[in-house]
Amino acid sequence: MRFYNNPVKEEWPEIMKRPGFDTYELRDKVQEILDHVKSEGDQAVMEFTQRFDGVKLSSTEVSKEEFNQAEKSCPQELKKAIQVAKNNIEAFHKVQFEEKKVMETMPGVKCWRKCSPIQKVGLYVPGGSAPLFSTVLMLAIPAQIAGCSEIVITTPPQKDGSIHHAVLYAAKLCGVTKVVKAGGVQAIAAMAYGTETVPGVYKIFGPGNQYVTMAKQLVSFENTAIDMPAGPSEVAVIADDQVPVSFVASDLLAQAEHGSDSQVLLITTSKKLSEEIEEELDRQLKKLPRAELASKALENSSTVYFDSMDEALRFSNEYAPEHLIISASNNVDLGDRITNAGSVFLGNYTPESAGDYASGTNHSLPTNGYARNYSGVSVDSFIKKITFQKISQEGLKNLGPIVEIMAEAEGLQAHKNAVSIRLEQLNSEG
Amino acid sequence: MRFYNNPVKEEWPEIMKRPGFDTYELRDKVQEILDHVKSEGDQAVMEFTQRFDGVKLSSTEVSKEEFNQAEKSCPQELKKAIQVAKNNIEAFHKVQFEEKKVMETMPGVKCWRKCSPIQKVGLYVPGGSAPLFSTVLMLAIPAQIAGCSEIVITTPPQKDGSIHHAVLYAAKLCGVTKVVKAGGVQAIAAMAYGTETVPGVYKIFGPGNQYVTMAKQLVSFENTAIDMPAGPSEVAVIADDQVPVSFVASDLLAQAEHGSDSQVLLITTSKKLSEEIEEELDRQLKKLPRAELASKALENSSTVYFDSMDEALRFSNEYAPEHLIISASNNVDLGDRITNAGSVFLGNYTPESAGDYASGTNHSLPTNGYARNYSGVSVDSFIKKITFQKISQEGLKNLGPIVEIMAEAEGLQAHKNAVSIRLEQLNSEG
Repeated sequence: MRFYNNPVKEEWPEIMKRPGFDTYELRDKVQEILDHVKSEGDQAVMEFTQRFDGVKLSSTEVSKEEFNQAEKSCPQELKKAIQVAKNNIEAFHKVQFEEKKVMETMPGVKCWRKCSPIQKVGLYVPGGSAPLFSTVLMLAIPAQIAGCSEIVITTPPQKDGSIHHAVLYAAKLCGVTKVVKAGGVQAIAAMAYGTETVPGVYKIFGPGNQYVTMAKQLVSFENTAIDMPAGPSEVAVIADDQVPVSFVASDLLAQAEHGSDSQVLLITTSKKLSEEIEEELDRQLKKLPRAELASKALENSSTVYFDSMDEALRFSNEYAPEHLIISASNNVDLGDRITNAGSVFLGNYTPESAGDYASGTNHSLPTNGYARNYSGVSVDSFIKKITFQKISQEGLKNLGPIVEIMAEAEGLQAHKNAVSIRLEQLNSEG
Repeated sequence: MRFYNNPVKEEWPEIMKRPGFDTYELRDKVQEILDHVKSEGDQAVMEFTQRFDGVKLSSTEVSKEEFNQAEKSCPQELKKAIQVAKNNIEAFHKVQFEEKKVMETMPGVKCWRKCSPIQKVGLYVPGGSAPLFSTVLMLAIPAQIAGCSEIVITTPPQKDGSIHHAVLYAAKLCGVTKVVKAGGVQAIAAMAYGTETVPGVYKIFGPGNQYVTMAKQLVSFENTAIDMPAGPSEVAVIADDQVPVSFVASDLLAQAEHGSDSQVLLITTSKKLSEEIEEELDRQLKKLPRAELASKALENSSTVYFDSMDEALRFSNEYAPEHLIISASNNVDLGDRITNAGSVFLGNYTPESAGDYASGTNHSLPTNGYARNYSGVSVDSFIKKITFQKISQEGLKNLGPIVEIMAEAEGLQAHKNAVSIRLEQLNSEG
């Protein structure tokens, strides 16, 4: 990790630079795959799966038997853990539903909002080096709470053409029985356009590599919504001198092991911690199976020392980390001053991995500085809020003249007329 | 308007086709303007304003004197109407702020969400044939309620280089004093990238033509969020035989006058209404100053007759109109069955123009079928919801083992270790 001592504001952008990739170069390549799936459907999906994943499938559908087999293969202990996680995530997300509040803005003018589920949604669960059943929970649970009527999961098959048992177990536990063996751009295309076996959906969720991200952004040009743009995962840890260095190092490494393009920042007011962190990272790193990935990620990473906690907070808010751990004595107060972050973990006993899996919060979060302008996934992400209004005859008498004046001033005579024609009738009735 | 009698489902897509444009053809042209403003700043903005709007400016900034002059020029009656509208819009939007609910998902595991404003936002107010001060209200009011610290409005100058007095009056009334004389792609570019005088913002809001829409979509690839994609405005009216034909015609025309690419649909269970509507439209149309635009819009439009109200509702939900007026005897019950719409207007005395201006609901709504997957603008659009969690030592003892099992199963040893290292210490302490 690089080290910075009280960097001045002009230095910040350089320290905060994310490991990037040039998405524009990918665009044409990704568009080609999208177009091919759009016109050829399942056949194209299976061709790309063979080409990119090296797996030859005769069908992309996960069968009932495969679900049953998965339930048998999944270890009991893991099933129980998944159940507990599900309960916590459900509890946290259930309270996110907004109650209907009818508001009378003027006598006789009633307005309200109704939450209505997005009917068809697609959840992308990446494959790669780990079976990400936790992502199934994080996406399927809020989709179910929102009441989405059609939920499809796409996830790349393993080398033998199967889907990992924990992924299928989690899907079924969340009531999702439509799982499609497809990953990458072809999976996004199948969900955006629909194929013979995959329903076209209105919104696509889930993390992915730069190809998946580009595919999501491109289909968002064509009527499909997406949860958010995505980049490599990242964490910032704000720490003072009351936290054991071993805790801090373990949190940084938990993030770093995601991939060589992950980024971790230690923002500290402790000279001691800033001096001891490297050695502790080395010590813990040696024992990790994914040490190589993690050590590459640390090369994109920095320790930033500040004399002042105020400056440390300003730095963090400017960086807008996906995950922010605050290991400091007054962590709750400091948390209140956070303006840009995806999810915040307060205190020495709140490691990020708790939220990644099981505490209840969602782990689908804005990366790459998008915490400045996006929220993480929640029940909100799976609903639309439709506004309603009902105006009584009395209400229109109160409000109508206002509308007439404004419409006239905007030069929209027919807008005015829609009010006038009604007011005239009301007045003629007496 | 075309007429359809009980169309079968296979016919629906043709009836529902929106008047489209091929955005892909615009892409390169728009990208070029974006790039130019990105590198040349204000100079480029002013060049494009001269080229596209035919206005030569020496500065894009609206001065204090211009605000003062606008306040003097704006008629008293219009100012009062704008104030009433502002009060109603404020009242409806203020209740949208979510209160903090701390949820203990397991003993010792506390999770909550905090609403945090998007700090810098840009509001685009189109110019063209009408001074859209109502759009200023609809965007600036929720931005203020959310607590955005930097709010900038861009809007194209009139031929004499000024901004319409009502636009400036509404802006100042909403506390926005940064108004930039720029429209079109160059305005979106200025807000996305920042220039010498325009702050770069994190999210851009507001309607616009196909160039503006494409510009918004393109900058959304580069870290700037946008409210939603946009298309031409549209209304559907569901009507039975208890509503006067003159009311229905006035509502259809209020939509049609927006532009030749607007679309209106009359969905009715009344044979009588379906027979009388054309004549009434003709009668009202003749008196409108924007008759030519409106009459072109009617060419993209249809009357659809259904024997059954159930089928009428299904049709409307499939169409997903931006605005939906339900003029039927049981309008509130029917409203409860609406699943896809931007904003719904219930009953004979609730014309859409009430919501366009002053009832309290927002008029920035999803068009082009996007009501399936997007909400209209609200306070939500101006905030991020940051999740927080705080786990006690006891809490980590409860939750930690679950996390360890799940992290292990995903092959993420460092994630597990961040928990284990803490549990070991807690256990060693006894």
